[in-house]
Amino acid sequence: MEASEKLEYVKRYINGVSAHDIEAIKAIYDDNATVEDPVGTDPHVGIDAICKFYEQAFNAELKLELAGPVRYAGNAAVFPFVCTVILGDSKLKIDAIDIFEFNQNGKVQTMRAYWGPENCSSE
Amino acid sequence: MEASEKLEYVKRYINGVSAHDIEAIKAIYDDNATVEDPVGTDPHVGIDAICKFYEQAFNAELKLELAGPVRYAGNAAVFPFVCTVILGDSKLKIDAIDIFEFNQNGKVQTMRAYWGPENCSSE
Repeated sequence: MEASEKLEYVKRYINGVSAHDIEAIKAIYDDNATVEDPVGTDPHVGIDAICKFYEQAFNAELKLELAGPVRYAGNAAVFPFVCTVILGDSKLKIDAIDIFEFNQNGKVQTMRAYWGPENCSSE
Repeated sequence: MEASEKLEYVKRYINGVSAHDIEAIKAIYDDNATVEDPVGTDPHVGIDAICKFYEQAFNAELKLELAGPVRYAGNAAVFPFVCTVILGDSKLKIDAIDIFEFNQNGKVQTMRAYWGPENCSSE
């Protein structure tokens, strides 16, 4: 899979999450994908569980912005970004790095998100 | 393992590689560690193979600089950086992201480096 195609997926993801567009999320992930967000928690397995996870996240206002170049290796794309979470009067910024691993059908098979309490700051 | 300890390892790695200090590398990795750099290539298994890999890399002048905050999740630290490779008159910049996974002894058990041709530029 070409880097340009991977980049397209990353952009669709960044924009899709920021727009709270669950159809965009569905179009990115394989039906049997897994999402571990953050790494160290139980993964969400399968598209239904994954959609439920994003729908819950969309209860807050979320904005994602890339924070550096996407890195490409093997079947993966790795991207640093800032997630801004707005809930009522509070605004939280999270520095995260996500890894997409693509399958042969050109869908994201696994997503792993790296961030922790030390990567969160309020404004 | 605390984030502050993981950060200490990342800094020792960044400085150790930049100083071409093979003893610093040895002190970071477990004897049975694996290094996959870049992801998609055969991993270097065990400290002897890992040292050989870095010694070969040190044939060029290498400088690493962090390019954003270190992210922490589970037993991992993930860090974006720029690697500048100087070989004779040529200067190559590589945008990379490495993942360290730590074991219970507080050593790096696995390292995976994400970068590809699309992440390289000459100056």
